[in-house]
Amino acid sequence: MANISGKSFGSDNHAGVHPAVMAAIAAANDGDVVAYGDDDVTRAAVAELCELAGAHSAHLVFTGTAANVLGLSLMVRPFEAAICAESSHLNIDECGAAERVLGCKLLSIATPDGKLTPTLIATKLTGRGDEHRVQTRVIEIAQATELGTCYELAELRELRAFAREQGMLILIDGARIANAAAHLGCSLADLAACADVLTFGGTKNGALGVEAVLVMTDSLADGVQYQRKQQMQLSSKMRYLGAQVSALLKDGLWLANASHANAMARRLADALTSLPGIRLAYPVQANGVFTEVDRLTGLQFQEDFSIQVWSEGDNGTCVVRWMTAFDTSAADVDRLTAAVEASISRRAQ
Amino acid sequence: MANISGKSFGSDNHAGVHPAVMAAIAAANDGDVVAYGDDDVTRAAVAELCELAGAHSAHLVFTGTAANVLGLSLMVRPFEAAICAESSHLNIDECGAAERVLGCKLLSIATPDGKLTPTLIATKLTGRGDEHRVQTRVIEIAQATELGTCYELAELRELRAFAREQGMLILIDGARIANAAAHLGCSLADLAACADVLTFGGTKNGALGVEAVLVMTDSLADGVQYQRKQQMQLSSKMRYLGAQVSALLKDGLWLANASHANAMARRLADALTSLPGIRLAYPVQANGVFTEVDRLTGLQFQEDFSIQVWSEGDNGTCVVRWMTAFDTSAADVDRLTAAVEASISRRAQ
Amino acid sequence: MANISGKSFGSDNHAGVHPAVMAAIAAANDGDVVAYGDDDVTRAAVAELCELAGAHSAHLVFTGTAANVLGLSLMVRPFEAAICAESSHLNIDECGAAERVLGCKLLSIATPDGKLTPTLIATKLTGRGDEHRVQTRVIEIAQATELGTCYELAELRELRAFAREQGMLILIDGARIANAAAHLGCSLADLAACADVLTFGGTKNGALGVEAVLVMTDSLADGVQYQRKQQMQLSSKMRYLGAQVSALLKDGLWLANASHANAMARRLADALTSLPGIRLAYPVQANGVFTEVDRLTGLQFQEDFSIQVWSEGDNGTCVVRWMTAFDTSAADVDRLTAAVEASISRRAQ
Amino acid sequence: MANISGKSFGSDNHAGVHPAVMAAIAAANDGDVVAYGDDDVTRAAVAELCELAGAHSAHLVFTGTAANVLGLSLMVRPFEAAICAESSHLNIDECGAAERVLGCKLLSIATPDGKLTPTLIATKLTGRGDEHRVQTRVIEIAQATELGTCYELAELRELRAFAREQGMLILIDGARIANAAAHLGCSLADLAACADVLTFGGTKNGALGVEAVLVMTDSLADGVQYQRKQQMQLSSKMRYLGAQVSALLKDGLWLANASHANAMARRLADALTSLPGIRLAYPVQANGVFTEVDRLTGLQFQEDFSIQVWSEGDNGTCVVRWMTAFDTSAADVDRLTAAVEASISRRAQ
Repeated sequence: MANISGKSFGSDNHAGVHPAVMAAIAAANDGDVVAYGDDDVTRAAVAELCELAGAHSAHLVFTGTAANVLGLSLMVRPFEAAICAESSHLNIDECGAAERVLGCKLLSIATPDGKLTPTLIATKLTGRGDEHRVQTRVIEIAQATELGTCYELAELRELRAFAREQGMLILIDGARIANAAAHLGCSLADLAACADVLTFGGTKNGALGVEAVLVMTDSLADGVQYQRKQQMQLSSKMRYLGAQVSALLKDGLWLANASHANAMARRLADALTSLPGIRLAYPVQANGVFTEVDRLTGLQFQEDFSIQVWSEGDNGTCVVRWMTAFDTSAADVDRLTAAVEASISRRAQ
Repeated sequence: MANISGKSFGSDNHAGVHPAVMAAIAAANDGDVVAYGDDDVTRAAVAELCELAGAHSAHLVFTGTAANVLGLSLMVRPFEAAICAESSHLNIDECGAAERVLGCKLLSIATPDGKLTPTLIATKLTGRGDEHRVQTRVIEIAQATELGTCYELAELRELRAFAREQGMLILIDGARIANAAAHLGCSLADLAACADVLTFGGTKNGALGVEAVLVMTDSLADGVQYQRKQQMQLSSKMRYLGAQVSALLKDGLWLANASHANAMARRLADALTSLPGIRLAYPVQANGVFTEVDRLTGLQFQEDFSIQVWSEGDNGTCVVRWMTAFDTSAADVDRLTAAVEASISRRAQ
Repeated sequence: MANISGKSFGSDNHAGVHPAVMAAIAAANDGDVVAYGDDDVTRAAVAELCELAGAHSAHLVFTGTAANVLGLSLMVRPFEAAICAESSHLNIDECGAAERVLGCKLLSIATPDGKLTPTLIATKLTGRGDEHRVQTRVIEIAQATELGTCYELAELRELRAFAREQGMLILIDGARIANAAAHLGCSLADLAACADVLTFGGTKNGALGVEAVLVMTDSLADGVQYQRKQQMQLSSKMRYLGAQVSALLKDGLWLANASHANAMARRLADALTSLPGIRLAYPVQANGVFTEVDRLTGLQFQEDFSIQVWSEGDNGTCVVRWMTAFDTSAADVDRLTAAVEASISRRAQ
Repeated sequence: MANISGKSFGSDNHAGVHPAVMAAIAAANDGDVVAYGDDDVTRAAVAELCELAGAHSAHLVFTGTAANVLGLSLMVRPFEAAICAESSHLNIDECGAAERVLGCKLLSIATPDGKLTPTLIATKLTGRGDEHRVQTRVIEIAQATELGTCYELAELRELRAFAREQGMLILIDGARIANAAAHLGCSLADLAACADVLTFGGTKNGALGVEAVLVMTDSLADGVQYQRKQQMQLSSKMRYLGAQVSALLKDGLWLANASHANAMARRLADALTSLPGIRLAYPVQANGVFTEVDRLTGLQFQEDFSIQVWSEGDNGTCVVRWMTAFDTSAADVDRLTAAVEASISRRAQ
């Protein structure tokens, strides 16, 4: 694939680094500090994150996959399973990292919109106490989901109550938790309170590359420092990860970035659905717009706009994904919309 | 541990990022590019690295531990073992990552100076073909070693010949391979030619955080992209890793950084060994100075200079490690030497 | 659960050991032999099995779970996935052994009758070549399936052709392969020819406890002896496993046992479906009878006959499983049928 | 290797099954019982074993390797390490099963006689609390050891106290624990009291193939049933494993078998050391006799008597191992001694 000309809507990972984050990285480059996180920059970042989330501890890692796996490693033994949505990043897009690193099984459930419910989860709770079956221990949900939807706080609390009732734990994949907080108008702590462990994504929100694992309960953090190292996620020059986190947290940049990306997604969704033959596949509640179009149109869009055909639908349709980022401008959206309109027109001729 | 005042000799990881590397990171922050390495910056870095080493392919990861494990994953099945020095990073300082991620056993050998020889390795080759024993498949060596020593090219070639004769493969842990090349006055390709897979360390050489796995043989690279992702080492915004590599390779900065660090280690070694009660524990062939002192002196140095007591010796002695970095100045060395002298004097009173 | 009075229909594992097998075990107890399979009894058993199946090599293990996992270990690396039926033993009833021991992901597919088809499998073949996704490498099918159905030879050959076309391999879980051969009237070699690796089940067919992994292709057997040992399946006194296999193969006892069990299942199916409110859930093609009844009746049967409610159906129904074994007699079936009739009558009052 | 003529001294695994055990297996073949251990025979065996050892629970598995790994799985997380003797079965003869199945590292220590001491163990306790290092959690000892030696009760108690002091747990590999109990004249409970988890070996003591994992502390048994299944050690027709255990425990057969084997080893040791050029390498405290001879003699013995050259010594010597079993007769020993004498005479000519 060639480099991208103009603003990409193919992925929020196509964006660069927010200037404030880049400035913080440069500012951290000031003399020697102790390695592996035992420095003031990292300590400050971790403390700020814990305070914002009401978390017991926070652990910085390099990628979202790593954050999910490290988080899960605090909650399961190899014979214990995590229940997740079939469409989840953990299940689909991590090349089996959890299975390999943890040796545990994921039990995935088809969902209409990427969201689990107690009713759906209950279908996987058979076999508890049966030695032939993996033992369901964790409910893994993403907030926002891979399909651009968000759980309402009430839904999260219902899941939390259900988990407690069942003796299970909740892991929130928060690679886009900023977008969820922006959508719901709630605090990070509101979301964190519904989890036992959650991840906090920096990379898709303007960082160069940093994610955090937040542990809400003291006992679950036991051994986390060894888990992180053994899982090959301990940065030697950790201060540069810490600097990114602090830059995002400063003056609510994380939330501003996410709010902006969400607004751009909303603007894009409104524009696209005004065009013929484009319908929303899922509600737009974060920074992703999933549109259902006929398959040939989908392929045309993929070619023209470097976006992904996300899934195949029935009756010759498909779903294509458009992502916005912290640095997507209204002009970018409008330009794209015009180009999409032109593409449709060309096809219609 | 508090932050460090002045130049640290505790670890080459205490140093910051070389200005040219930081500039390259900032320069890469220019618009949108495709994620996961499918961008011009990463492609260029990988191509340059392959050319320099004569390698078939190169794969960027976050840490040295990850590079070692990814490299090893291309060469062993779970019942196959790697032979390594007891003092090796792989064996001691990776919290069992290889065992966990690969499920394989490491067979470690005590060495006088961190270096393996055919004779030492042969002691671990019993049990080949015996189904009860792990099957020795890989010889893992570090160049430079954890003890600051380097293999001569002739020694590497002898190991290479021995490995071929035994049907084994060679993995070079090159976290400090620049220091070895500088010491030997040889090219990266000279070293790489003695390995089947090697790692190339950026982090200790002035990068923010990037290591590469170089694969010398086509067939060994089969599946490496999945291995990297499953091992949680695939960076989404890969360009910032690529930019670091290219900055280090540009105009031989990697070698200049290493040469400088080596020279500072030499200067420090000469100065320290002129002080009473300090002897070299190992030859100084890279950027580490390992000195043998009596135990109480060692503990005093640890307290005064934030350096590590590396190992306990016989007769009440211990070995303490002093590391230099790309940005250690002659004045830093002289200041340290003076302080060490003063510390000794205080203790002598 | 208490011991069972009379013949159990709860599982073919409730049966004891066939007298000829027990006699062979006793006969093998004759003086000293070399351990770990390097003895005449084991060699003979393995040779007979290879000849019968046209296999390259055969490897005895203790359990069906172990046979599946050892077989799979010859075909996948951790980032490669096996596709299997959602109802498969591998997926449901092995407590995640494959995930733990191999570190790989299973991709399960809901099926109407426990059988995979190329069309069903194709739904899981997306993402090949995408580094974020596990790479589909193996099609795992059971013959007979966990639902008592069998693939026709033509279906197996179609799967085989499909696998080759896709560059995939086939693993047959043959825990009840004797029942399938009996049902189809084909040879073991006919079935084995459709697989790359298959397992041959002794335990459910009258053995005390022995299964075999048959490897059809030379290259796949590379390292199998180490895999077996590392997977904790190497028997020291192997001759007693070999003796069981030879006893089953002698004069076609394996096939006679399976044919008899199948016939008893047929007899039971005919009898049960003549009773009110009992329908077949799946065709009866091996030694299992799966009947659909209303839920309360299912629970009553579970209590009265120590059989399992296998799954919940729609509209208040459930599926209950009845298994026959090599030693189920026609009188046993008739007695059960009468008792079931009586149980229904009692409930109807 | 060919079959063995006459009594083998090559391994205690070369022996067959004790008649009482074989009779018990045959006697268990009486009608249908519930599978997977939920039957009277297994329940009785487990209860007897628990009572004899003072254990909280007992879990039957197929092999000694499996027993060690299952036992260890109750005590370590992947980043936690077990310390063991370099010569231990766990370290040498299990083809890396622990590393693969548990993902953990073993830290092995060279010993003069196969026995660990607090002083030896202390050399591996560095790095506790350091996130780069595996965390030492378990002390694994074998009783009797692979070298035919036994820990005295006082030594075990010292290890136990040391472990408690260090916050560590003790796993006893009891593949030959009967021989140790016979040697020490103590009860199984005396030995078990020094462990947190221990294994009880049946196979080398006259069984067909059964080992048990005994858990001394309630909390450590959490999840053991899933661990056993996932580790592929759950026997479907478990009663035949239970029957073997009960047969060994009945009227102290386990101890009688071991006492007899020990006595034959003593007789053999006395006879062999009266021959020229044969010295004991280790004290004879169980059923193994390890003799040091010059290398050519060792190779001759290996050829003549199908015994193993166990290790190479200094100065052209080697150690050869002779094993006795429950069914080795005094006449067998005397015949062997005469043959060894003749072999030496032939070589001397």
